[in-house]
Amino acid sequence: MTPGMREPTTLDALETPAAVVDVDRVNRNLERVAAYTRSHGLGWRPHTKTHKTAALGARQRSAGAVGLTVATPREAEVMATVADDILLAYPPVGVAKIERVLALPEHVRLMVALDSVDVLRPLAAAAAERGRTVRVLVEIDAGMRRVGVTDPEAAFALAARAVELPCIAFAGILYYPGHVRDPVGDQGRPLHDLSRRVEEFVQALERGGLDPQIVSGGSTPTLWRSHEVAELTEVRPGTDVFNDRTTVLIGACGWEDCAYSVAATVVSTSIAGQVVIDAGAKALAKEEVRGAGGGYGALLDRPEVVVSSVSEEHGILDLSASDWRPRVGDRVRVVPNHVCVSVNLQERLWVAEGERLVDSWPVEARGRGRYPG
Amino acid sequence: MTPGMREPTTLDALETPAAVVDVDRVNRNLERVAAYTRSHGLGWRPHTKTHKTAALGARQRSAGAVGLTVATPREAEVMATVADDILLAYPPVGVAKIERVLALPEHVRLMVALDSVDVLRPLAAAAAERGRTVRVLVEIDAGMRRVGVTDPEAAFALAARAVELPCIAFAGILYYPGHVRDPVGDQGRPLHDLSRRVEEFVQALERGGLDPQIVSGGSTPTLWRSHEVAELTEVRPGTDVFNDRTTVLIGACGWEDCAYSVAATVVSTSIAGQVVIDAGAKALAKEEVRGAGGGYGALLDRPEVVVSSVSEEHGILDLSASDWRPRVGDRVRVVPNHVCVSVNLQERLWVAEGERLVDSWPVEARGRGRYPG
Repeated sequence: MTPGMREPTTLDALETPAAVVDVDRVNRNLERVAAYTRSHGLGWRPHTKTHKTAALGARQRSAGAVGLTVATPREAEVMATVADDILLAYPPVGVAKIERVLALPEHVRLMVALDSVDVLRPLAAAAAERGRTVRVLVEIDAGMRRVGVTDPEAAFALAARAVELPCIAFAGILYYPGHVRDPVGDQGRPLHDLSRRVEEFVQALERGGLDPQIVSGGSTPTLWRSHEVAELTEVRPGTDVFNDRTTVLIGACGWEDCAYSVAATVVSTSIAGQVVIDAGAKALAKEEVRGAGGGYGALLDRPEVVVSSVSEEHGILDLSASDWRPRVGDRVRVVPNHVCVSVNLQERLWVAEGERLVDSWPVEARGRGRYPG
Repeated sequence: MTPGMREPTTLDALETPAAVVDVDRVNRNLERVAAYTRSHGLGWRPHTKTHKTAALGARQRSAGAVGLTVATPREAEVMATVADDILLAYPPVGVAKIERVLALPEHVRLMVALDSVDVLRPLAAAAAERGRTVRVLVEIDAGMRRVGVTDPEAAFALAARAVELPCIAFAGILYYPGHVRDPVGDQGRPLHDLSRRVEEFVQALERGGLDPQIVSGGSTPTLWRSHEVAELTEVRPGTDVFNDRTTVLIGACGWEDCAYSVAATVVSTSIAGQVVIDAGAKALAKEEVRGAGGGYGALLDRPEVVVSSVSEEHGILDLSASDWRPRVGDRVRVVPNHVCVSVNLQERLWVAEGERLVDSWPVEARGRGRYPG
C-alpha cells in the first residue's frame, strides 16, 4: 500500500479481486486438527505450501504443531522465521537448491524427504562439507505413482545408505496418499490398503534393524482417518487450514469450514443466464472439478452458484440453479476448487472478522527468490 | 537476488523452476506482427497481460505498437512507465478501480472498453470530477458470449450515451473473438461469420451517425487473418509475443516460434515410464489440452514428451513416446499450454541468448497492488 493511502477497513472497501481469510474459521480449523492429532497421539507437521504465510505458520506452531512442512527453499526460508523444525518434503536437486537449504539459519532442525541415492549423495556431501546434520526421511510410494520408492527392500537399501553417511541421520519414512480421495469408500478399502502398504515398508526396515522413528503421512482427504493407519506417527495436512470446494465435495469438511474466499465484483451482465465477475484464472486458478456442478469455484454464500468458466481475468457465474439476479457492482465471495493454487496467486491475504478487516498477511513464501530478498 | 550473491550467467546455473525467454525468438515474433499489421494498414495495440513486463512493453512500442493494452489497474500503472497510450480492455467497476485508473500519469491517453451504462456512468462522473478525458470503446459480443453488448442497436444506444457525457469521448468498438480457435476451419466460416457480425455493429453505429473511429479486434488465434475482417482498424494480440503449446496446436505458430519455457530439473525417476520434474501447477499452471497428446505442456527440445500430470510442485513427464531416459539432475525446458498464466506465476523472466543469460526482467505487472508500491 502506498504511504499515505488509507488501508481498507471493511470487505466492501477492498479493491477486487482480493483474497479474504475468515479468521474465526481458521482458528476453528487449527483447533480441530490440533485436537484430533493430540487425541490420537499423532504428531502434526502442517504443510505450509497451502498458506505460504509466516503469520499462519506461527499460529500453527502455537496451536501445537511439532514442526512445519515445506516444498520449496523459499517456503523453508520464510518458515524458518517462525519455526525451529522444518521438513522439506521435496527432493532438493541441483547445487543451488541444496546450498539454499543448507544455508537455513542454524536454529533450524532440518529434515528432508527423498527417494533416491542420486538425491541423497550430493545432499550428504554438501551437509558434510558444512558440518550440518540433516535428518532424512525415505519417501515411499503409497500408491499414487508420482514419487517414492516403490519396493520395501529398496526403501531399506536407501535407508541403509543414509545411515552410513556422515552428517545424515536416518529418521524414518514419508508418504503422500494423493490417490486416496475417498478413504472410507468401498467399505474402507482405500484406507485399509494404504495401512497395509505402509506396514510392509515399516516391517522391511525393522527386519533390517532400521526402525523408522517417524512415519509421516499426508493429505487433507485422509486426515480424519489417519489414526486408522496403524504405523503412522505424524501427519502433514495442508489444505485443512482453509479448506476449499474440493475438500467439501469429497466430504472431508463442511461448507461452513471454508475459511478462504476470493472477493470479486460483478462487471458484466450482458449475456442472459450468467454474470461475469473480475476473478478468473489469475485469482482463482483454473482447476476444474468434474461432476458435482463442475466449474472452478462456487459462491461462499450461495454454493449452488458455480463459476462455470474462467478466462484470465473473467469468471462466469452460472445463474441457472438460482433465482438470484445480481447487478453490475454487486460483490460476491468465491470459494475456489483448490485453495493452495489460489493463495499462490495472491500477494496478501486480507483477514476478516465478519465484514470487518482486522489485518492483512503478506504471502511471503510464494515465488522462488531468496527470503529475505 | 541477495546483495553479494552471484547472478547466474548460464541456463544451467539457474535454480529451477525458472522462466526463460529466448530473446532472438521474441524479437522475431515482434518483427513478424509489426510487419503483418503494417502491411495491412492495421494498428497494433498488443495486450501486455501476456508478459506483464515493462521491458517488453517498451520493445513493443519501439517495434511500432500504437499503444498498449492492459486488463488490470496494475498493468496500466506499469505500462504507463513505457507508453503514452493505454487501453484498459476491461470494465473498471468499483470506486477503488476507477480512482486508480484515473490517477494514471497525465501523459497517458486513456481508453476504456465497457459494455454497459452501469460501468459508463460512474466512470464518467469520476472523469468529470477530475476533468480528465477518457476515450471509450463499446465492447461487443462477437460470439464468445462472455462480455459485450449482444445487439447492434444496444451498442448504438450505449455509444450515444457516451457521446452525451462530459469528459467521455466515444472512440469506437472492441471485441475479443475467444470462441474462434480455428479461423480457417469449415472453409473459413468462423472468420467470415465474425467479419459479418462486426460489420452489423459498425453499420448500426454509422446509421446513427456515430462512425467508430476504432474497431479493435483481439486474439492470437485469429491474428494472421485479421485483414479478412473487413471493418477492423487495429488488433490486440497478446500471446504471440511468446507463443505457447496451444498456439502451436491450433496452427497459429510453429514450435520454433515458442520463445518462453520453464527450465526444470528431474527430481525423481522412481516410477517406470515417467520421470518427475520440479515444475508443476505453481510454475506451468494447470490448463489442460485435450487431444493432441493432452497434458499440461511439452519439452521445448522434445515436443513428443508431454507433461502428463501436474501437482503443485511436481510435473510428470510421460516417456512413452520417446526412447530418451533422463536421470535425476538432468535439465529440461517446458513450453506450457498457456503462456499468460505461467508468466503470471513468475517473479522474473530470465533472458537467454542460446545457453547464455544476458538479462532478467521483473514481471512488474503481476499482482494487484499499486505500482510503484
